[in-house]
Amino acid sequence: VKALITLTTDFGLADGFVGVMRGVIYSIAPAARVIDISHGIEPQNIHQGAFVLANSVPFFPPDTIHVCVVDPGVGSARRAIAVRVGETILIGPDNGVLSPAIETLAAQNGASPSVVALDKPEFWLARVSNTFHGRDVFSPVAGHLAAGVRFSYLGSSLDGFARLALAVPQRGAKGEITGQVVHIDRYGNLVTNISDRDIADLPRDELVVEIAGRRVRGLARTYADGAPGELVALIGSPWKLEIAARDSSAARVLKVGVGEQVLVKAGN
Amino acid sequence: VKALITLTTDFGLADGFVGVMRGVIYSIAPAARVIDISHGIEPQNIHQGAFVLANSVPFFPPDTIHVCVVDPGVGSARRAIAVRVGETILIGPDNGVLSPAIETLAAQNGASPSVVALDKPEFWLARVSNTFHGRDVFSPVAGHLAAGVRFSYLGSSLDGFARLALAVPQRGAKGEITGQVVHIDRYGNLVTNISDRDIADLPRDELVVEIAGRRVRGLARTYADGAPGELVALIGSPWKLEIAARDSSAARVLKVGVGEQVLVKAGN
Amino acid sequence: VKALITLTTDFGLADGFVGVMRGVIYSIAPAARVIDISHGIEPQNIHQGAFVLANSVPFFPPDTIHVCVVDPGVGSARRAIAVRVGETILIGPDNGVLSPAIETLAAQNGASPSVVALDKPEFWLARVSNTFHGRDVFSPVAGHLAAGVRFSYLGSSLDGFARLALAVPQRGAKGEITGQVVHIDRYGNLVTNISDRDIADLPRDELVVEIAGRRVRGLARTYADGAPGELVALIGSPWKLEIAARDSSAARVLKVGVGEQVLVKAGN
Repeated sequence: VKALITLTTDFGLADGFVGVMRGVIYSIAPAARVIDISHGIEPQNIHQGAFVLANSVPFFPPDTIHVCVVDPGVGSARRAIAVRVGETILIGPDNGVLSPAIETLAAQNGASPSVVALDKPEFWLARVSNTFHGRDVFSPVAGHLAAGVRFSYLGSSLDGFARLALAVPQRGAKGEITGQVVHIDRYGNLVTNISDRDIADLPRDELVVEIAGRRVRGLARTYADGAPGELVALIGSPWKLEIAARDSSAARVLKVGVGEQVLVKAGN
Repeated sequence: VKALITLTTDFGLADGFVGVMRGVIYSIAPAARVIDISHGIEPQNIHQGAFVLANSVPFFPPDTIHVCVVDPGVGSARRAIAVRVGETILIGPDNGVLSPAIETLAAQNGASPSVVALDKPEFWLARVSNTFHGRDVFSPVAGHLAAGVRFSYLGSSLDGFARLALAVPQRGAKGEITGQVVHIDRYGNLVTNISDRDIADLPRDELVVEIAGRRVRGLARTYADGAPGELVALIGSPWKLEIAARDSSAARVLKVGVGEQVLVKAGN
Repeated sequence: VKALITLTTDFGLADGFVGVMRGVIYSIAPAARVIDISHGIEPQNIHQGAFVLANSVPFFPPDTIHVCVVDPGVGSARRAIAVRVGETILIGPDNGVLSPAIETLAAQNGASPSVVALDKPEFWLARVSNTFHGRDVFSPVAGHLAAGVRFSYLGSSLDGFARLALAVPQRGAKGEITGQVVHIDRYGNLVTNISDRDIADLPRDELVVEIAGRRVRGLARTYADGAPGELVALIGSPWKLEIAARDSSAARVLKVGVGEQVLVKAGN
């Protein structure tokens, strides 16, 4: 068995937490291959972890095991779960961080998710802390899966999983769309929850994007369109509307953060 | 041979130093597997490197090779060493950075450490700089070990290795324990050198922790205990007393750093 | 086929971009081994990316595939290319970021570079964004190469590639050398473009280095030479003149950045 396992956490890379997770996995499944999606999720930011994971899972082989640990409730009553969607398995706390990725995969595969509670201590480390289930529960479970344990053996079957409440773009009476900034990337690009399909019926060249009192006219093709520092709106790599500033940071230019409202309408 | 090699350094990830170490290792031992523990150790902070390494080594397979390079004396008279404890081998400068990990492994295995000086140029790169022994000495030595060279061939046998002077908790006349903050993690949790065993005879619910003029009563189970922002004391994943602030950073709340004194006593 | 693929980008590690690149590569070439050189290149800093890549490539096995994506012109008219130098292949935008590495390898191997435009969509992802060719073009091309596709099949043959304009040290009438700081590493060491060969004929002990109005006398051997905080000049790991401050940051001490002028002359 040569499983591919991904890790997405808010652990950072300085404290050794992620290396320890790999040590635990390789101790159980020496032939597994463990790769990082991100460990730079802001501490305890479940929405950010969910966003990054959901945008990443479509690009992995179908039989990948994804471990995601953004877990402010570690050691408390929150459940630990594994979810199977088609051939893909996701592992993490049942706090909603997995739900957008599960829904993305389910939509892609037409498969319905199966869920188990990670309630069988034989698949955990012998001694379990109350503060680091990434090491003590989630990594060993991923290791045992990679080593050949069947999904249904991991724990009791559950009816469902916690779903994250996500803001959904709204369409107004005149066809205008109101959405939100849901992610700011390293370059300061503002990624919204408005998809290319949401605005497909608006005229590409005459469309107007309003954010933070500023208006951007027309949809650019690339970040390199427009003058240096100029705001552009374009469809980014997750196929969502994005506001960028050429050779600069739109987040800094506009002084906005996640949650900022974005309005898209036909120009006049 | 399919060796597992870990890397712990203060090199950061931006300058390409770590990628180059992997290039050197794979050039010598193409089948090795190289994984990161941390490259975010503060520049030249030997104590932090030692702490992170010592907390990580117990979670790796016994036959792992650990390379640790926090090396302010690179190119000077300080020795370069390899140490074998049971099946595990540690490689690095002889400045104390390896010593807590060696002691952890020796306690775990009941094995006594063997030490060699890395004084045989045939296991180094052909041209050795005075500033990057991670690339020129430690990585090629790890590669040759992974490729099958025997430990004792690496260099001259030594009697011992440099030990880091670590603060040890003190027990006072009334049974109170005085320790120190020894690490601050990404979340701002304050990890102390006071172990769960040190306070095992104190009453869990009535125990008082004093730090920076603040008192925390009782031992919490998880970070999620207590109100948001409230300070809690608990046993963390290295099985040490930790001071945390729910959904916040205890380091920021208390404005303290590594070395801050912590007192634990029975409550009154 | 068990290819080694390296990644150098300005993507950072937080947004999941690099994990997605690995997902794409492993989907096409499950047996490939993908390792990071750096993802901490400053956003859109082509010179920094080029510097880090060129210093790293000599330490990898000859048949490595290097992918480098620092790509402010993504989606615009800039070309995407692959370049073969001996057995090594480099992949990236044709904006100069590859050129110092190509020249380093060509000088090392005595090989002349072959160049192809990445203009065959059968080696890309089915849907290509205008903002993330790291995912949609460069990673799948690297994956196909690793899976056995021949270099010449990747696209149309080209006559050359864009070359980065690099500052070159100048020798004055009295034998003095004027160069520049070209990189500042994590420790604040100032790496210049003046090589050990450039100053080989100057007297090592009496040489004077002038930077930012300060004079450093003599060439030190190691960072540990001199008193704490004292400026030292030495030959660093890329075999270039470097200005460092013991146990401190020369960049902070001198308040200088990349581009700062450095003068080296015989002392008087």
